[in-house]
Amino acid sequence: MARYDTISFLSDYGRADEFVGVVHSVLRSLAPHAHVVDVNHDIPPHDVRAGALCLARAAQYLCPGVVLAVVDPGVGTARRAVAIEVGDGQSVLVGPDNGLLAPAVAMVGGAGRCVSLTDTEYQLPAPGATFAGRDVFAPAAAHLASGVDLAELGEAVDAVSLLPGVLPVTHEEDGELQCEVLWIDRYGNAQLNVDPDEIEGWGRRVQVAWDGGSRTATLVAAYGDLAPGEIGLVTDSYGLLAVSIPRSSAAFMLGLDTGLQVKLRRLDDDVAGGVVTPVELGRRS
Amino acid sequence: MARYDTISFLSDYGRADEFVGVVHSVLRSLAPHAHVVDVNHDIPPHDVRAGALCLARAAQYLCPGVVLAVVDPGVGTARRAVAIEVGDGQSVLVGPDNGLLAPAVAMVGGAGRCVSLTDTEYQLPAPGATFAGRDVFAPAAAHLASGVDLAELGEAVDAVSLLPGVLPVTHEEDGELQCEVLWIDRYGNAQLNVDPDEIEGWGRRVQVAWDGGSRTATLVAAYGDLAPGEIGLVTDSYGLLAVSIPRSSAAFMLGLDTGLQVKLRRLDDDVAGGVVTPVELGRRS
Amino acid sequence: MARYDTISFLSDYGRADEFVGVVHSVLRSLAPHAHVVDVNHDIPPHDVRAGALCLARAAQYLCPGVVLAVVDPGVGTARRAVAIEVGDGQSVLVGPDNGLLAPAVAMVGGAGRCVSLTDTEYQLPAPGATFAGRDVFAPAAAHLASGVDLAELGEAVDAVSLLPGVLPVTHEEDGELQCEVLWIDRYGNAQLNVDPDEIEGWGRRVQVAWDGGSRTATLVAAYGDLAPGEIGLVTDSYGLLAVSIPRSSAAFMLGLDTGLQVKLRRLDDDVAGGVVTPVELGRRS
Repeated sequence: MARYDTISFLSDYGRADEFVGVVHSVLRSLAPHAHVVDVNHDIPPHDVRAGALCLARAAQYLCPGVVLAVVDPGVGTARRAVAIEVGDGQSVLVGPDNGLLAPAVAMVGGAGRCVSLTDTEYQLPAPGATFAGRDVFAPAAAHLASGVDLAELGEAVDAVSLLPGVLPVTHEEDGELQCEVLWIDRYGNAQLNVDPDEIEGWGRRVQVAWDGGSRTATLVAAYGDLAPGEIGLVTDSYGLLAVSIPRSSAAFMLGLDTGLQVKLRRLDDDVAGGVVTPVELGRRS
Repeated sequence: MARYDTISFLSDYGRADEFVGVVHSVLRSLAPHAHVVDVNHDIPPHDVRAGALCLARAAQYLCPGVVLAVVDPGVGTARRAVAIEVGDGQSVLVGPDNGLLAPAVAMVGGAGRCVSLTDTEYQLPAPGATFAGRDVFAPAAAHLASGVDLAELGEAVDAVSLLPGVLPVTHEEDGELQCEVLWIDRYGNAQLNVDPDEIEGWGRRVQVAWDGGSRTATLVAAYGDLAPGEIGLVTDSYGLLAVSIPRSSAAFMLGLDTGLQVKLRRLDDDVAGGVVTPVELGRRS
Repeated sequence: MARYDTISFLSDYGRADEFVGVVHSVLRSLAPHAHVVDVNHDIPPHDVRAGALCLARAAQYLCPGVVLAVVDPGVGTARRAVAIEVGDGQSVLVGPDNGLLAPAVAMVGGAGRCVSLTDTEYQLPAPGATFAGRDVFAPAAAHLASGVDLAELGEAVDAVSLLPGVLPVTHEEDGELQCEVLWIDRYGNAQLNVDPDEIEGWGRRVQVAWDGGSRTATLVAAYGDLAPGEIGLVTDSYGLLAVSIPRSSAAFMLGLDTGLQVKLRRLDDDVAGGVVTPVELGRRS
């Protein structure tokens, strides 16, 4: 009967409360055969965009099975709770229909069958409507893992009606590449929404500018190619360019934050080969 | 031989040290068949009350089996280490006899057989007496899971001698309901020790007052019934009233904290139906 | 085919990102039979010494199997990635060759066979060279758990060429014992690199001095032997002396930090038995 043996679980529940532990308990009581992998529970509270980006980064590495994702500022409102099949049913994503799942769904080939989780038979009785992870989403994930067909969980939903995720795209303007900081990781690397191919042929030095400062960065393959303290544009572990300073936090040193608009400028060969002075590094309030 | 296949584990060990990982290792070496569910390890250090409330909230959702709970400021003193059967042996709670287990035990029907963990045969040799979770409690939990009978772990203890938990109760005074903030969750909701039945028939608006401020709150079933920024009294996921502000932190905005004494006042229908001005919102030092 | 059923995992990845979850997913996809124990992921970023000490403390309690440890400031440079057998192959440690593994290896009897993880057949294709935990170390750990022989993962390495760990040793000078704070735990206990045997016969009171202050501490077996607020030298759960204050943080109260040089001075019996006044407690900047 069991259909999926892995449930990958992401949320903004944090660790200070028992939310994550209670969801694990519910999953285990309803699907004792399934193994739960905690992807990340420290998404900033209610930050759907951060959760969506995190899930998209992780998606290609997750085991086939059920993905349970809960960042749900609209809990208790009319927002839909959904389950979305991908890869011809190889996996199912379960969560709120608020854009959280959309980038990951897109990355693995788009949505197949979808349902709205309306059948309360597959839910826990809820003393209050504020903990849908425990009462709605976790039971749905566990029942799917145990072999209940998606269609039994609620009304069919047209995939085109799902809320899309908004992933920022780059564009060129006046010869500059307009981009954005997607993510600051634990080590202070600032991931940009830029594929290295987009600046192919620009040479080894690139100017990185933002509201409040600009610096010249060195384009390298790995941290090891940078001198201590040197600002680098490094292809990160997800294949995107990140502003990095070896053994230091680029985000802290330069005042970069998630969502910041950034411009990449091609430097003349003269400048690129000569002395480069960092300019205009402003304070960040 | 194996008797329980789930060990639910709560502590104040935090995540910065290896305490949780070492306890997992000890459990796995002594009871490899058992699955460990981490309920919460970020109880504030030595905060027995917070641990007891967290365990009580989680208790009804935990899988039958062993519950290992360690918030133990008295480690190395004469405080008893105990194991307590509940539900005719359906589950066993293991931890210090300092009130931590008491509310959860009461919630599931009260204590059955109890022992003091005095038999060192079922403990690890301890270089020092400061890590009873590793040396005393985890081995007891693992041995119980593996089929060792409770009575073998030490001397029988009379359940009435166990330290009770102190759960604050509400009372009425001058027509007001005197209550208390039990818990601030990650989203800033302030759970009160008030069942919605206690204010049944009061109408849609209720005054919430505390030392330093008072505000009028709207009694609603879910966050979705509140306007942005509106202060609500919402039935939370454990069936108690919580002071909440949608997509914001009520605790931060109003200066509420765990243990704060709060009064709920019934408002006249006139006031309830008319313009309501927040009054007296003081600063919080 | 499966050889090891436990993978113990330590890193400095923290919990705010999906690093730990992605490594779990990779381990599960390559070695679904193996159980992963999270030892600790909150080692301060790039702090190899803290990671090495944590792993050494935990080592004696870990289940036999694979130990995956990643604190890797040199990722993307020429530093070697290694796997080291210990205990005649009872366990294997996998991680960077930067001293992180050395104290744990020494504690369990020294290195047996070693390899450098050079065979990319046993690695994941990496979009960038910055996440070796996911692309190099986790696959190696999973393949070892699944029965791949160490020698297949890369070139043999002479154990004497491994980077040694630097564990501080005590020494006597002018009748004082010069030591060091190894670790501040969650409760504020300051572990010293001092075995209680080193001050055997010194009597019940010992002066603890450091740059900025000194205090008289009471040598006791457990917290329970100290009065509230009294400064103790307690044999901690790893058998080393720790500066502790019951139900308080000695580190915070006294301004102690990891790596601080400390002197222990024997007190005259007269002083030891009489009135002892704390002296010289300086502020800590």
